[in-house]
Amino acid sequence: METVTTDREACWLTTESSKPRTEKLLLSLVGDAPMFATIRRLCQNHAAKFFVETAITDRDTGKSNVIIGTWTSLGKESTPNLGSEGYTIFSEEGRLWIVAEEERGLLYGFYHFLKEIQLGTPLLEISAQEKPANVFRMINHWDNMDGSVERGYAGRSLFFEGGSFTKDEDCMRSYAELLSSVGINALTINNVNVHEQESALITNRWLPEVAWLAKLFQEYGLTLFLSINYASPITIGGLDTADPLETSVADWWERQVERIYGSIPSFGGFVVKADSEHRPGPFSYGRTHADGANMLAKALKPYGGHLFWRCFVYDCLQDWRDRSTDRARAAYDHFAPLDGAFADNVILQIKSGPMDFQVREAVSPLIGALKQTKHVIELQITQEYTGQQIDVCYLPPQWKEILDFDTHANGKDTTVADLVSGRANGGFGQGMTAVVNTGRDENWTGHSFAQANLYGYGQLAWNPKRCLHAIAEEWADRTYPYLPKNVRKTIVSIQECSWIVYESYTSPLGIGWMVNPGHHYGPNVNGYEFSPWGTYHFSDRNGLGVDRTRKGSNYVSQYAEPVGSRYENLQTCPDELLLFFHHVPYTHVLTSGKTVIQHIYDSHFDGVEQVKAFIAAWESHKQELPEALYQHVRVKFDAQLANAVEWRDQVNTYYYRMSGIEDKHGRTIYR
Amino acid sequence: METVTTDREACWLTTESSKPRTEKLLLSLVGDAPMFATIRRLCQNHAAKFFVETAITDRDTGKSNVIIGTWTSLGKESTPNLGSEGYTIFSEEGRLWIVAEEERGLLYGFYHFLKEIQLGTPLLEISAQEKPANVFRMINHWDNMDGSVERGYAGRSLFFEGGSFTKDEDCMRSYAELLSSVGINALTINNVNVHEQESALITNRWLPEVAWLAKLFQEYGLTLFLSINYASPITIGGLDTADPLETSVADWWERQVERIYGSIPSFGGFVVKADSEHRPGPFSYGRTHADGANMLAKALKPYGGHLFWRCFVYDCLQDWRDRSTDRARAAYDHFAPLDGAFADNVILQIKSGPMDFQVREAVSPLIGALKQTKHVIELQITQEYTGQQIDVCYLPPQWKEILDFDTHANGKDTTVADLVSGRANGGFGQGMTAVVNTGRDENWTGHSFAQANLYGYGQLAWNPKRCLHAIAEEWADRTYPYLPKNVRKTIVSIQECSWIVYESYTSPLGIGWMVNPGHHYGPNVNGYEFSPWGTYHFSDRNGLGVDRTRKGSNYVSQYAEPVGSRYENLQTCPDELLLFFHHVPYTHVLTSGKTVIQHIYDSHFDGVEQVKAFIAAWESHKQELPEALYQHVRVKFDAQLANAVEWRDQVNTYYYRMSGIEDKHGRTIYR
Repeated sequence: METVTTDREACWLTTESSKPRTEKLLLSLVGDAPMFATIRRLCQNHAAKFFVETAITDRDTGKSNVIIGTWTSLGKESTPNLGSEGYTIFSEEGRLWIVAEEERGLLYGFYHFLKEIQLGTPLLEISAQEKPANVFRMINHWDNMDGSVERGYAGRSLFFEGGSFTKDEDCMRSYAELLSSVGINALTINNVNVHEQESALITNRWLPEVAWLAKLFQEYGLTLFLSINYASPITIGGLDTADPLETSVADWWERQVERIYGSIPSFGGFVVKADSEHRPGPFSYGRTHADGANMLAKALKPYGGHLFWRCFVYDCLQDWRDRSTDRARAAYDHFAPLDGAFADNVILQIKSGPMDFQVREAVSPLIGALKQTKHVIELQITQEYTGQQIDVCYLPPQWKEILDFDTHANGKDTTVADLVSGRANGGFGQGMTAVVNTGRDENWTGHSFAQANLYGYGQLAWNPKRCLHAIAEEWADRTYPYLPKNVRKTIVSIQECSWIVYESYTSPLGIGWMVNPGHHYGPNVNGYEFSPWGTYHFSDRNGLGVDRTRKGSNYVSQYAEPVGSRYENLQTCPDELLLFFHHVPYTHVLTSGKTVIQHIYDSHFDGVEQVKAFIAAWESHKQELPEALYQHVRVKFDAQLANAVEWRDQVNTYYYRMSGIEDKHGRTIYR
Repeated sequence: METVTTDREACWLTTESSKPRTEKLLLSLVGDAPMFATIRRLCQNHAAKFFVETAITDRDTGKSNVIIGTWTSLGKESTPNLGSEGYTIFSEEGRLWIVAEEERGLLYGFYHFLKEIQLGTPLLEISAQEKPANVFRMINHWDNMDGSVERGYAGRSLFFEGGSFTKDEDCMRSYAELLSSVGINALTINNVNVHEQESALITNRWLPEVAWLAKLFQEYGLTLFLSINYASPITIGGLDTADPLETSVADWWERQVERIYGSIPSFGGFVVKADSEHRPGPFSYGRTHADGANMLAKALKPYGGHLFWRCFVYDCLQDWRDRSTDRARAAYDHFAPLDGAFADNVILQIKSGPMDFQVREAVSPLIGALKQTKHVIELQITQEYTGQQIDVCYLPPQWKEILDFDTHANGKDTTVADLVSGRANGGFGQGMTAVVNTGRDENWTGHSFAQANLYGYGQLAWNPKRCLHAIAEEWADRTYPYLPKNVRKTIVSIQECSWIVYESYTSPLGIGWMVNPGHHYGPNVNGYEFSPWGTYHFSDRNGLGVDRTRKGSNYVSQYAEPVGSRYENLQTCPDELLLFFHHVPYTHVLTSGKTVIQHIYDSHFDGVEQVKAFIAAWESHKQELPEALYQHVRVKFDAQLANAVEWRDQVNTYYYRMSGIEDKHGRTIYR
């Protein structure tokens, strides 16, 4: 127990149990698809630990108490239509059946079974009928071949080190289990910013290594994609152009794709960041993003490959003096006019908000605006702007708000979840992707609690309607089975309010940014105020906020009605997004009844108190906690408190100096 | 002429001449000290280029027209008392005599002769009687063994690359000529921040290389010093302490010094940055700086070595919330109480201002406060905070103001120059040192004009009373002999106002900082406002500035009277230092008659116009300039203009947003 926090087992796939079982597991794995080997391995490494004895047979001997197989292999008549990834678990004749249409469904069914076993559910009470809401449940690694991870807060890259592949099979299998256990079915292994070394991942120099990884992940239902450099025809192909309408360029890509699929029949396709933050793209040739994406998609098409094309395209060399440009408009302005112009294996990848993964943003108006173009939503699991796995910030509540947001794109009740799942738009929604938060740290995510973000992402990607509280409890129960229930309850309650707490002591009322430039940790109110990144708060002695109304940048008009009008109107704009949409005086009264300035003071004082409360709660359990876990979390909490105090004081002082308005409650604001 | 700006010759030691000579040079070098070989080499490589024919003999044949020798070697009776570095040049019996007491005087005399030759002075009209005002005329390199230069803007290190010495003899000799030609007589070759690699410079691994360099520089009258790591007994000595009062530590240093002098008899000693910006020092052991310095000085003493101990000691982990601590007080508070406690071969090294080489600071009150402790003033030639050799900023006017500053330390007319030269304090002043601005760039200093800062430093270190205008003209005449006089005049006039121009568009009225953290180039009004570095402007909606009066941090009381009172009093405090000493409202009226806010606006608008005027002047000479020089300077000017515009707009916008006060002249201030 002492080493729990520095142990790869210290996650929801732990083999510890709070309730020891007294049964034997007599498992029949009926069938011979490759996935059965995976399930057998999972059974031996995980499920078997919970039973007094385990035996696995490859046919139903009649003595087994759990039978796994496809409807076909079991000779049963398929009843529910759960697709290739769905599964059914039921008991019949005193035995438990895990049945699916295809082998990937069996894998997910087995994980469901494993979860219930961990949680102590009696064997014959396990019951499920599941299919994922989303086609793609993807993660994106921002890993570089030198072993660094862009925006990584959990140690070095899992895949790369020193310019090469780590090729650590045990680690890779553990990681594949981690991902597939929460239903993730696709991943990219390299950074969307594809630098020189990584541009060569598609060459014969590295393809065997990529193929090795792809095959390993495929055994867990995970399809491997690569991020590519749009300028590859030049940088590695020896051409003098990457113009998508040049035949030589299209031909070059066709040859590359043919070669890749020759090595990796299961290859998923490419992810591309083009014409964004100094990355090359079709704009260099006066071509559209559709031109660029379709050319690549055409090369992938014969092999069933997909092209993920990121919509994170904006002017990152904006002039802060230029008040006519609004970065928030960029994704919509670039891509909405191209709706319908993309090939059917192009999937646009849309960041959840119009800026960049701030603690609070409006939902991207591009989601809902695309009627005839495949797309996924992109979230950020890694806590770039939300505490960097030092501060606790459990993000599923944020994601849930986004997924539940009613875009009104096809009238009322057109939620983001229904759009991205394709339910509300005839299948153009293709699911979800997210920048992942994992690395070589023994606990995978730097902060033990941050694992819950990966867990929650998988759960919501599978079923966006799932109860948040159930997710949090399930994660805690599985991860810390050895802790008393009341301790797990504390952990869950900390997690559940942590996003709002983080928001309260950082940038106020949806304005975002105010972070230290570059690394993005800690406060710096003016850190991006005079930068070229389009990220401003426009605070002066009278007020603050960005005017995105019709009189301002008119960003509000990118939303369907009545959403746009709700944001346009000061009276109906939600408090938490007020400064994202409006420039208001410090004395403006929020719907909460507080003035903006008093809200800034109150939320920043409160945020620090909340972090202190986290620490007090943690301390109250000190005797019940293993020393290593206690210390691990305590050290993080201390750093979080220091960060929260610094945020509180810098933000409060900044706005006191600006506004000259005293705190109504006379608390300490440094002059 | 095309490559003039990328040629090592493109400096004041150029062998081009505006006025070709028709004489022969028949030189007798009478004597055989090692320095004669140096002078012979200089004559061949430099002076000879100006004459139609040159012959050098090692005795006076009677036919020579220039004779160089000591009073002794020439068998003449010494008349003026010019010390070991002084010299006399006079004509007698139709021949020119360069005579000195010692060989170093001959070297400087020869450089004087060379300068006059370059400038076209007729041979027999050359006449001089010179001795340096300062004992030490030193420069400090902040070079690291990996080849990088801390705060270097002129390329890679001259001495180091890739963890080793460059050992490029030609380059080293050229560089030694450059330094000695302006009278510099001592240097450190490595960064005062002594990292792991450089800590080993005093070990046998590197001593042969150091010795090689020391010997080479010695040939040019330059004494080599090393920056050392105070914690060396631990980091390289294997001891578990660096406590200066531990016998084992003192013994260890004695053995090191003995070994060093065994290899390098001419070795100058050590420079130490201790207990400063995370460098180790005696504070770790509860010892004083005197304890630390004296222990090292004792080891150096038997060999005539000196210990330079930097007074740049302050709390770099200050809390911005703590208004009771004032970094400006630190050097005085640390060192004034120790006056008299240092060994006589310890030389305290005092930064010219109390902060850190800002464009405008008050003079350090520690200069004048030390009555019984040897010291030098430390300047910064490299333009860390003054444009980084992108913006033109000719610094001798700043240094001259500092040197001419009347500290009143021993009553009226106790100037800094007289203190640091020792004239006003019985020899405790030991001269000047400065962080140098040179590197491997072909023109030595990145910006061709920035050479003038090194030239001017040498001139003022030799003679602080020298006319600034003469220095600037002399530098331009020697460096650009091929340019028409009117072009040189333009260059001189740009140089002479460049410091004030730089000041006008950067941080106002002595407040300093407002730069981008880390690299220190470009504006960032709040860049250091909430940092731990003790560098604040305390701007709020009503006013700005740091209260260092008796009611504030009482820093003013560190000055002798009436200086302290002059700063204390709002009416007598000079405008240019107002915000360094006082927190005032934006509406405060300066002695200039302008309000503070209008001064901020005016100076920032004016600064940009001045840079435009520089460019216009340069353009007006385009036809007269060699293309390479034209382009080199034009590219720098364009970057300077962009920088000035950014400073103007960020500072003006920041203070407009803060104060809400309009510019009286209605110019564009972005909202």
